[in-house]
Amino acid sequence: MSAFEKLVKHSKKVSHFQHLYSISSWDQASVMPSGGAEARGEAMAELSVHIHQLMTQPQLGDWFDAAQNESLDSTQQAILREMKQQWQQATVLPDEFVEAKSLAGSKCEHAWRKQRTENDWAGFAENWKEVVALSQEEAQRRADVSGLTPYDAMLNLYEPGTTSASLDGVFNDVKSWLPQMIDQAIEKQASDIVIQPTGIYPAQTQKAVGQEVMKLLQFDFNHGRLDESVHPFCGGVPTDVRITTRYDEKEFVQSIMGIVHETGHARYEQGLPRALAGTRAGEARSMGVHESQSLFFEMQLGRNPHFIQHLAGFTAGRFADATPGLFSVENLQKLYTQVKKDFIRIDADELTYPAHVILRYEIERDLMNGNISYKDVPELWDTKMQAYLGISTKGNDRQGCMQDIHWTDGSFGYFPSYTLGAMYAAQFMASMRKTINVDSVLDSGDLSPIFAWLSENIWSKGSLLTTNEILTAATGETLNPQFFKQHLATRYL
Amino acid sequence: MSAFEKLVKHSKKVSHFQHLYSISSWDQASVMPSGGAEARGEAMAELSVHIHQLMTQPQLGDWFDAAQNESLDSTQQAILREMKQQWQQATVLPDEFVEAKSLAGSKCEHAWRKQRTENDWAGFAENWKEVVALSQEEAQRRADVSGLTPYDAMLNLYEPGTTSASLDGVFNDVKSWLPQMIDQAIEKQASDIVIQPTGIYPAQTQKAVGQEVMKLLQFDFNHGRLDESVHPFCGGVPTDVRITTRYDEKEFVQSIMGIVHETGHARYEQGLPRALAGTRAGEARSMGVHESQSLFFEMQLGRNPHFIQHLAGFTAGRFADATPGLFSVENLQKLYTQVKKDFIRIDADELTYPAHVILRYEIERDLMNGNISYKDVPELWDTKMQAYLGISTKGNDRQGCMQDIHWTDGSFGYFPSYTLGAMYAAQFMASMRKTINVDSVLDSGDLSPIFAWLSENIWSKGSLLTTNEILTAATGETLNPQFFKQHLATRYL
Ligand SMILES: [Zn+2]
Ligand SMILES: [Zn+2]
Repeated sequence: MSAFEKLVKHSKKVSHFQHLYSISSWDQASVMPSGGAEARGEAMAELSVHIHQLMTQPQLGDWFDAAQNESLDSTQQAILREMKQQWQQATVLPDEFVEAKSLAGSKCEHAWRKQRTENDWAGFAENWKEVVALSQEEAQRRADVSGLTPYDAMLNLYEPGTTSASLDGVFNDVKSWLPQMIDQAIEKQASDIVIQPTGIYPAQTQKAVGQEVMKLLQFDFNHGRLDESVHPFCGGVPTDVRITTRYDEKEFVQSIMGIVHETGHARYEQGLPRALAGTRAGEARSMGVHESQSLFFEMQLGRNPHFIQHLAGFTAGRFADATPGLFSVENLQKLYTQVKKDFIRIDADELTYPAHVILRYEIERDLMNGNISYKDVPELWDTKMQAYLGISTKGNDRQGCMQDIHWTDGSFGYFPSYTLGAMYAAQFMASMRKTINVDSVLDSGDLSPIFAWLSENIWSKGSLLTTNEILTAATGETLNPQFFKQHLATRYL
Repeated sequence: MSAFEKLVKHSKKVSHFQHLYSISSWDQASVMPSGGAEARGEAMAELSVHIHQLMTQPQLGDWFDAAQNESLDSTQQAILREMKQQWQQATVLPDEFVEAKSLAGSKCEHAWRKQRTENDWAGFAENWKEVVALSQEEAQRRADVSGLTPYDAMLNLYEPGTTSASLDGVFNDVKSWLPQMIDQAIEKQASDIVIQPTGIYPAQTQKAVGQEVMKLLQFDFNHGRLDESVHPFCGGVPTDVRITTRYDEKEFVQSIMGIVHETGHARYEQGLPRALAGTRAGEARSMGVHESQSLFFEMQLGRNPHFIQHLAGFTAGRFADATPGLFSVENLQKLYTQVKKDFIRIDADELTYPAHVILRYEIERDLMNGNISYKDVPELWDTKMQAYLGISTKGNDRQGCMQDIHWTDGSFGYFPSYTLGAMYAAQFMASMRKTINVDSVLDSGDLSPIFAWLSENIWSKGSLLTTNEILTAATGETLNPQFFKQHLATRYL
């Protein structure tokens, strides 16, 4: 057996344990009774340790060295490249460090749940300074090995190949036109009459509508399910993708579009190359590309009036709420494109969302590179919030820098993926429109040509190509924020 | 760390992986879409191998030797005894043998699914002779190590401490009165008018009734769930017990009593000693004792008219079927105690069930001990079926020796557990009645005193005591089939 073959065999072994970890996580989040939490936590921690041990086995280094000299075709080379990168990322941190950071993160997160509601920045900062310090250390360790800046080394965990130099360029471009576009959109919508949901929308009916939407989006129910969880997610494995949503019976807007979003993630997973299953190259490219698929579904397809007409059909006559016009295409379209300057990122609309992300990007970049202190964050947050959205979070850290869970448990470098995904999605759509009449395909109710394009250009590639290679092959160029600007201008101005 | 402590730590590690295996099995049987089966099968096989490797790690032998000389209290001694027995059972078979037997079993089972419907004994025998041969080899290997007869060595996997010498005595006693009692019961019931369900009983309503029953039986929903699967079972882990049932909308009889049965298994699991979690001593005693709890719920409680009055209450007015009297206490009682001589064990009633088990016991005992050949089985089956139930399976192996899955995949020694469980349950009830007025407790709707007795005498003991010790402590004597006879006579004569 060649070293390359040994590496692939080992990778498949690891993926079997990851499979069970995924399913167990889904179970934990969506069906496990709360009394099962403690024992489950212990069992999953044990599996986690086992997976980490497998991924850092000493003989892997020798195999990687030997495989480098074996004659491999281009697919095998890509598989090797991805396996090696994953291995390097797994081995760079000593076990004790990983444990210390995980403990600090858990402690901070646990206290944060209460401190956030109490707007207790001082209390939060006590724990958080440790999380920041350990994250800075992690960034530095990763930087030492990769030769990148500390922040770029973190960024590479979520969107390999992206640098803050390139992000600065892209985000500065967005900052040059976004605040003005937001103001214009709000002014344009000021006179709109939007009928808001005010009835009761039973969870079971929302679920039935959600399933119709999933069918329209050709979710493969033979390889996946829809369930419920407090925080919606897409989990499981490519042959058995588990998406979840949350039903609020006071409205239907969120659950339905949440399902559209998660279905985008799910179809990417379901469309990954089966022949490469169990190797990193058979997995999704990156967080950014993953988000590009969910946002392609949610924003590029889901908010297109030719799609919304189907939502109108699915909801028509299903709910007792008889407010005239509530479920009309026009009103649903308005509900789904209302622009509002507000504090909370996860509730933000499509147009203001990038402002939330850029703000976080700039702060976490400077924090990881050691240019600012954790103490500076509340004030910086307020300043940037005022600059980008014109609202202040002074003395309101609960709705400011304490609102998200990501930094709380030390996930720095993750936020840009959201807006990168939105920009990739706009660029993909612009390219798709060159060969596909997307609106008529949506009208027809058979969305196959759209999915064939996504499958051909993105899903079937797994991680064989880099993000830039995917973008270039699919759209003729690397990330260009003009497509995103154009998309937003068309929809909101 | 003492050798004993090392063993306990190791045992807990193994139990974490077993936890994930259990949850994953539940998922596979009850929610997994069929397209996920192949990858899941591979992942679970990998975990299975890993668990087996852990359980047979070379250093365990040294630890067991060393622990033997450590000063341990009686609980620790029991923990050590159980760990050692499990280790011995895990190490007795070489890996290649386990794999060969598993392959032969899978092959036989796969073909059996079709051969059974086609009544193809000749085809089945082709594969089955290999399964029997390997099972005989397994029995011999286990006999060599344990000093038991081959069959007793298999029996000990499911009901440690039981021998065929003791079973012969018990089952011969049963055979001396059962056939006559069956005839008498059938004659007595001949003039009964039983209203059969003929309507449609929606699954959702059956589930709601099932949940009411589970509440009455004090199932802990904070540590468990009710779901659906083709073959009902009780799985999961003690802190998160997953029971399943199957709904046939043409009747409600099976699903409801199936839930009662599985709830018995579940409460045993939920009642196991938490302080011993992760050690074999904290697990259920045996298959026989497990079945004694499910059958205590299903037969001793579930078919008691004072229990059935609650079922009548839960079902009253819930189903559209308005056949007068269908849901009356009297009619439900009759539905749940109808005696019928028939071919299929899993559909058998309480009174004829032991005949099915004894028949299998006698055949598998002689087969494992090498006293008969696999070729003799159809004829022996027919002869015994005629002797115990007065019906013939000549030329009808589909409903004869090919009906069960247990032998098909090589699980010999398992069948007696069912009837042992039924007999233990009757003996427990007789003892309980000495201090508890079970009928008035059932009338009251608060069944706590019954569960307190079971918890005190069985659940909380885990595997600290042997089955005989449990029986003796709880009832004053070891297994005595007279309690079973008395129970059946009271109910059916
Ligand atoms: Zn997403
Ligand atoms: Zn059972």
